[in-house]
Formats: sequence, C-alpha cells, structure tokens
Amino acid sequence: MYPDLGEYFARREQLVSEDRKQRLDARTSNKVVDEVEGKADRLVRAIRAQEARNIWGPDSNVEVDNDTHLFPGMAFLTAREIITKTQLFKIMSRLPKGALLHAHLDATVNVEVLLRLALRHPAIHVRTPKVLTANSIGSIQPEFRALRRSEWDSASSVTALSYIPGEWVPLRVARQNFDPTLGGPEGFDKWLTSAITISPAEAYRTHNTTQKIWQKFQSTFHTAGPLILYLPVWKDYVREFFRSSIDDGISYLEVRINFLHRYIFNEAGEEIVTHSTLLGEYDRILNEVKEEMRQQGREDEFIGSKIIYSTIRFIPPDELQWYLDDCITLKQKFPHLIAGFDLVGHEDALRPLTDYLEPLTKFVERQKELGIEIPFIFHAGETLGDGTNADNNLYDAILLGTKRIGHGFSLIKHPKLMEICKEGGIAVEVCPISNEILRLTSSMPMHPLPALINHGVPVSLCSDDPAVFGNMGLSFDFFQVLVASEVSGLITMKELARRSFKYSSLDENEKQLAVLSWDKQWKKFLQWLEQEYPALEA
Amino acid sequence: MYPDLGEYFARREQLVSEDRKQRLDARTSNKVVDEVEGKADRLVRAIRAQEARNIWGPDSNVEVDNDTHLFPGMAFLTAREIITKTQLFKIMSRLPKGALLHAHLDATVNVEVLLRLALRHPAIHVRTPKVLTANSIGSIQPEFRALRRSEWDSASSVTALSYIPGEWVPLRVARQNFDPTLGGPEGFDKWLTSAITISPAEAYRTHNTTQKIWQKFQSTFHTAGPLILYLPVWKDYVREFFRSSIDDGISYLEVRINFLHRYIFNEAGEEIVTHSTLLGEYDRILNEVKEEMRQQGREDEFIGSKIIYSTIRFIPPDELQWYLDDCITLKQKFPHLIAGFDLVGHEDALRPLTDYLEPLTKFVERQKELGIEIPFIFHAGETLGDGTNADNNLYDAILLGTKRIGHGFSLIKHPKLMEICKEGGIAVEVCPISNEILRLTSSMPMHPLPALINHGVPVSLCSDDPAVFGNMGLSFDFFQVLVASEVSGLITMKELARRSFKYSSLDENEKQLAVLSWDKQWKKFLQWLEQEYPALEA
Repeated sequence: MYPDLGEYFARREQLVSEDRKQRLDARTSNKVVDEVEGKADRLVRAIRAQEARNIWGPDSNVEVDNDTHLFPGMAFLTAREIITKTQLFKIMSRLPKGALLHAHLDATVNVEVLLRLALRHPAIHVRTPKVLTANSIGSIQPEFRALRRSEWDSASSVTALSYIPGEWVPLRVARQNFDPTLGGPEGFDKWLTSAITISPAEAYRTHNTTQKIWQKFQSTFHTAGPLILYLPVWKDYVREFFRSSIDDGISYLEVRINFLHRYIFNEAGEEIVTHSTLLGEYDRILNEVKEEMRQQGREDEFIGSKIIYSTIRFIPPDELQWYLDDCITLKQKFPHLIAGFDLVGHEDALRPLTDYLEPLTKFVERQKELGIEIPFIFHAGETLGDGTNADNNLYDAILLGTKRIGHGFSLIKHPKLMEICKEGGIAVEVCPISNEILRLTSSMPMHPLPALINHGVPVSLCSDDPAVFGNMGLSFDFFQVLVASEVSGLITMKELARRSFKYSSLDENEKQLAVLSWDKQWKKFLQWLEQEYPALEA
Repeated sequence: MYPDLGEYFARREQLVSEDRKQRLDARTSNKVVDEVEGKADRLVRAIRAQEARNIWGPDSNVEVDNDTHLFPGMAFLTAREIITKTQLFKIMSRLPKGALLHAHLDATVNVEVLLRLALRHPAIHVRTPKVLTANSIGSIQPEFRALRRSEWDSASSVTALSYIPGEWVPLRVARQNFDPTLGGPEGFDKWLTSAITISPAEAYRTHNTTQKIWQKFQSTFHTAGPLILYLPVWKDYVREFFRSSIDDGISYLEVRINFLHRYIFNEAGEEIVTHSTLLGEYDRILNEVKEEMRQQGREDEFIGSKIIYSTIRFIPPDELQWYLDDCITLKQKFPHLIAGFDLVGHEDALRPLTDYLEPLTKFVERQKELGIEIPFIFHAGETLGDGTNADNNLYDAILLGTKRIGHGFSLIKHPKLMEICKEGGIAVEVCPISNEILRLTSSMPMHPLPALINHGVPVSLCSDDPAVFGNMGLSFDFFQVLVASEVSGLITMKELARRSFKYSSLDENEKQLAVLSWDKQWKKFLQWLEQEYPALEA
C-alpha cells in the first residue's frame, strides 16, 4: 500500500495542499510568508488555542446558565460580552480590516449614539398606541417623528395615566418623565434599545426561525428609521459611521443607502429633503472626515467611501423605474459616489429578481446610451432555501452581471455559479454574524464560509447591520470567523482584509493606493503585536 | 444586454441546467422520465406544497407552544409526531428505499421491542446506585446485566426504601414492582426509554452542542448494551432488525456491528460467546428470514445483509491488531458476510485515523497475502470542525482507500476530496436525522446534503442509530430530505434509493439482481400511488 509511513505522510501533505490550493491564503501559508508574519500567525494560533480551552472550553471559568453552551464561534448575542474580554478580540480590533463592502447605512451607528444624536433636537417626538405600563412595555414599540414647530405637542409622558394614546411627546421630555417604576430615563433607553436591536431571547428562542426573526429585524428599521431620516441627525449619523468605522480599522466604506423614501425630513420637520441634497451632505462630511484624518497624519487609515443605491424588493415593478431614473440622476451628479445599484429586503418573502427584469435590463441599456456605469451589486441567495425564489435569485444576479453578491449564503449549492464567481472575480459579501442572528446558521462552525474559501470563491467579510446585531465595525466578524477554523489563521485574516479593496468599486489606481496604505497599517499592526505579546513571541 | 426576455429566460434555463447537471437526477429530471413517473413526481410536489402551508406553514392548525417553530425539515424530535400524520410520510413509508448502508446494529430496534425481548429472560437483572425516588429518577440510569443462575438475586424493587443500592433485581420483578407514584410498570418503561433514547429537551436545550449530546448518546449505548449483548436477546434483535427494515421498504442491509467486546453473554449468563458464534447465528437468522420472504412470495423485498466489522476509535493502536486479526478470521469463515472494516465513535473526541496507520496498512498487506479483500468503510468528517483531527480524517480515509465515507459531513469543504469521491465512486453515507440530533446541523435546510448532490458527489441516505433517534427505518430520513428542498422531488428519492445498491458491497451480479427486484417494487409503488391519489392524478 505505502512502502512506509514517511511515504504516506508525504502523499498526505501533497493531498492536503492540493485540497487547499484554491484558498486565498494558499500561496502565503505555503511557507512563503516572511518571518515576522509567520511568527505573528503562530502567536495568534497559540492565543486562540489557549482561549479555546480557558474561555470557551473545558477549563472555562465563565459563568453561564445550564442551557448556555460555550464554544468558539457560538451564538454571537450570547457570546458578545465574553468575546470583548478575550485577547483574540483585542488583536482583531487592532487588525486593519480593509474595505467594508456590505453594510446598510441606517444600521451602522450604535443605539446609544443614535439616541444621543436624536436627543439634541426638540423637533423629535415619540408616541405610543397605549399608555406604557409594566405589563405593556414588552409589547409596545415607540413611534418617532420629527414634527414641524406648529405640530409640537405638550404631552409630557407616555407612561402617565393621563397620557392620551397617539399624542406626540417631545423625545427629551418623554425620556425625562419616563415612569421611575419602569426605570426612569434609563428605562426609556432600555425600552428604545429593545425596540431597535435584536435580543438573544428573540434570536435564539422566541423568534428562532428565519421568517420570525425577520419580522423583528424589519421592525427595528421601521422604528429607528424616523430618527435617522431627519437631516440634522442624518448628518451626524453619517459622520459617526465614518469615525467609528475608522476607529475599528476599516479604511474604505461601500455602503448601501436605502432610498425608498423619496424625501426625508429637514430641520423644520418638513419632508422635503431630496436624495441629491443627502448626497451633497454625504460628500461634504466625507471630505471633512478625510481632512480631519489628514490633519492628524492618519490619511492612510481612511481612503474614502462610495454608495450603493438601494431600494426594497417589495415595490411594484413599474415603480422601480422612478428609482432607476433617480439613481442615474444621482450618478450623473455624484459620479464618484454612486458605485452600484441593489434591491434589498427579505428574499424569502419578497419579490424575486425575475419580477424586475424588464426595468433592470432597460436600466443597463440606458446607461450605455448615457456613457455611465452603475453596476448591479445584488443581494442574492440570503436563504436556506434549495431551489426557492430566493436561492434562484443567484442565477439572475449572475445573468444580470452583478459585480459582487450580497450574502450568497446558498451559493455553495451551485457549482456552476461558483465557477463563474471564481472566473469573473465576483466576490461574495459574507456577513457571518448577520447570517447567524437571522437564523441561516446556528453558529459559526455551521457557516458555509470555510467551504467557499476552500473552493476558491472570492469573499469579503462584512457586518451588514451592526447597529441591530451589536457587531459594530468588523472586529466581531473577523473574530467569529477566526475562532471557528483551525485552517484559517492571521494570514487568512490578512488576505481577507487586503483583498477587500480588489473587489471594491475603487478604480485601479485608487485600489493600488488603498493597498499601499493598508500595507503600512499592517506593518504597524505587526509591530504592535510584537510589542504587546513579547513573552509569546518565541 | 439581452435582446428580449425570451432570450433571457432561454439563457437562464441553460444556466440552471448546467448548474444542476451533476445531480443524480439530472438526466431523469431532464424530461426523459416516463409519463407515469413524471405524473407521480408532480403529485408528490403538489402534496408537499400543500402540507408546507397546511401543516408546517402559515395555515397550520398544529398546536405548539410559543417557542416551537414549525417549518418543513425542522428539528426531528419535535416534528416526529406531526410527520407521522402527513400524506408525504405515508408516501415515503411506501417508497422502496433500496439499501441501508450505514446503521449500527445495536441501535436499530426500537426500545419498546427491545424491552419486550429482554423481559422474556429471567437472567436479565437491573440495578441502580441509589434508591430511585421522584427526585433522583431524572439523574439515575439503570444498569442491566444477564446473571448466572447462581448470582440471581432476590431484591424486589429499585424503588423500595428497603432497596440496597447496587443489588441486582430481576428485570421483570423490578418493572412489576416499580413504585406506583413513579408510574408503576409504565413508569419503569418511561425511565428505561429516557435512558436509551435522546429527548427533544436534551437535543435542543440541555445538551445543545455536539460535545454534550455525544455524552448522552454514548450513555444510551452503555445502558442498552448489556440487554443486547445477551445471546438469546441478540438473536431476536437481529431478526427484528431484518423484519422491521423490510417492512419499511429496505431490501438490503449493510450493518456495522461493534465487536469491541470480545465475548458476549450466553443464555446461562456466561460471557463466553465468540464473534464467530454470533456470525453463525446472524447467517442462520438471515437465511430464515429470506426463506420466510420467499414463502410469502416477497423475495424481491429482501436481498440480504452484510456486516461491516467495527471497533471503537479509543482503543490503543497496539490493541487494534487483535481486532484486525479477528476480522480476518471472520472473513475467512464468513466471506459472504464480512463486507468491510471501520473504526467508529465520536471523531471530535477520540483518536484520529493517523494513530492507527501502522496496523491498518499492515492489515491491507496481510489481506493481499491471504487473497482476501476487506475494504475500509470509514467514518470520517462527522464534525463541524475545519481542519481539526476529525475533519482531517477525511484525508486519511481517502488515502487508505475507503470504499465509502461514513457521514462525511465536512466533505463539502474539500474540493479535491470531492473530486476524488466523484471519480472513484466513493459514496458518502449521509445520515440527515443523526446529524441534526447530534447537533451538526440545526435543521434539514442547514444540512450540506443539497450541496453534495449538486456537486455530483455520490450519496446514500442512512439512518445511523434509529433506536436512539426515533427515525426507525429510512422513511423519516427520506421525508426530511424531501421536504427541505424544492429542487429534489420523487425522482430524486427514486435515484437515491436505486443507486444505493451501486455503492453497496454486493458483487456486480448481485447488484444487477437487486436493482431488478427494486424496479419491480418501484412499479408497484407507482401503481399504489396512482390508486391512492386518483383525484390529484391530473
């Protein structure tokens, strides 16, 4: 069979290496990484192994209840607090992450900050359909709106017995007067937080299916939307998105903005702000933040940002035309900002791409006439379905020439489409934590990402809706991916980060500069790692 | 882009068909099925769609608690009772299933029958380490043993206050005298059942990780083992395994027998029965059952059975030699029975195949010298790990020339190994319900089977340990696979069943005869379907 075991292991090494040759880290992991990187990779593996035992494994001293089961890559919402205390998370927080290619703007700033931003503005009001009591608080969501001064109301609390349901209460006043038996102002914050984020109990018990958790997920957008779609808040929100992303080590942002609402509210509470105005503001804030960074000598940490124009896949096909025209208009006015077009929303429940073929193909023709280029960057295959509309969206995304695939969770089932993605450099925007919380996978070890990586499908790690899921930035997503694989290591994370620019909408020149800047960050990161863990260095 | 939508849809159809061309049903589903089969496939799809709404979906009138979420392919232990009431299950029960290629003998007969068989024998005794009370019953497992007559004890109940812990009580007596406040004899049966099966609460709450559920899983074998390893029970058990499998539409059984214990107990309670005696009995019972079937004119329903010699992957490598020699001895004596060799047990926790390379390769050499052939049929990749020992077992199974792969749950991550399986006709014995209960997947829609099918990897559906999981026969496994895919249909199930012989250890001639017999069963099945659902026929 085998003349000796030496021969066996030689054959084995060859087989393993052939099996892994399509991986993004194949060349680098194959002993051609430089010495410092090799050392850093071993260090990170050692820390991971240690924490797999001491924190997630048999020697763990983390206290949890009987029904909670600790393991690396476990349910994120249960693990979150534990993760933040690990060395590996500290390291992932420092890692330069490259480009964030899949995030929805209205879910990128954490809820405490959003509330702080909203509280600055007396126009923002809140109301409830019932007086809020200890019994009803769990089932009643707040409704927010920016009112015109003439509409400002004098009601003083949604928890007072005298509150007339449906009356608007100024946000600050409602918070200040929130019934002390419901926790006072902090109780108000808690109530708001539970309305616009997903709790572990929801994700893992009461709403533990894709269908049910999407109901809650959608309601978070419904509730938070009016706070964000108020121009004075929106501007601060965008700035915060840039700054917090940079702080997390993300240097380029290609964000989806949902333009479903044709207008948003101005400071005076009038719903008249156009998409064009918004993009003007976006551009201005972007330039300000870039200038800030330049002044701090940190220009390598932030390359810039572009926008993927999005609307929701429930609109009737004949209404899509308005959005496509709008997108073209914006592209003409802000050619450097508009990077693509997408249709978003729950694929299992909403319209398949085939419903929109006619307007979408005309959109492509129209671009040719105008000499502009707005690639599709479609969500597709964000589903557990096998041969369902949502799964089949992958065929249409590909046939329509999508530049990347949002989620592509079911892509692993499609050998021909995987081949096309590999050949055409169509990257899958993989959102590990989002997929887990929205019940496509129960934990990271069940996620198809390692399969995609081994099959050589281009991927990029993304956060999707961090404000709802609590995975702010990209550190948590990198962490969850890193702990759930023994094949992947720091070098894999490096390649994931570094290649993200390649799949972005930057032009070739910008990409080169972006990677150059990233390489500098990576060097600094390695230096930090060496200083931080000198004992483990050997 | 596309001249018109007709052109688009033509391109789309071509792409879908190319994407699915490696599927086992590709040729047949591609409109070359005959008219009757086509009709039957549409009928089954219609019933599935109806039940997806009326039973598992929005129009369901099945009553469940708040935290239970109905959907097709949901957690089996919660769904089991609902499944048995569906039309689709009735149909899958009737389907001729072909060969069962992965099941462990000591978990193939359901617990009620096992108890009934055990109660026939006064030698079988039970004991507990404490008096059983309402408080302790949940945490105390019964210990069984067949005693020699001289050891028979006179203790009369494990629930009496006078019971001296550790004293043996005759099984029948212990059952008869089980405290009425603990449910009397029925309470005894319930206690026994909970010790040797997995409950929904265990699988989905208290033991909801691979590691924890395996502890419970192993304890079921530990507890039930002594009942089965008593020759008088063993013989009835084997006969029941054959008969109940035939009743479920399985016509060939390639079963793994765990030969870890070098001797089992004879009727007199002496641990002296050899493996050779066991195989002699197996052969005799097999022939009796075949003869029974012949006399009933049902010889097409049962082709026969072979045995995969197994021991557990915790034994020290130098002890493996004994088992390999034993396996060769048995093969020489029962060449028609011994079909292969395997190492079983929890891959994540036990020794990797690499620990056994030396004896295993010598085993192969020895066979060549003796002119016999005992292929390896290894468990491998029954894990969520990525690059762990259990995952890497796949490399060794392949390098050692495995004939099939038991589980291969992580195979989808290995492009080169998938290629080798496709080229070499190495089938994966996929055990969908087992994987779900042992927490490799949370539900059928998360299972990698559809990906393996689309990539053209040969697969065979198997039940693994139905007595522990409650998935008796193969009907439940076929059901769970069928409801969790819109691509697969009755024709897919047909191909799964029919091809199972191809991957079996039957010789070429036997395979041909097996398929001929199966084809007759399939025809009868189609006739039954037509008669049973005349209204839906159109």
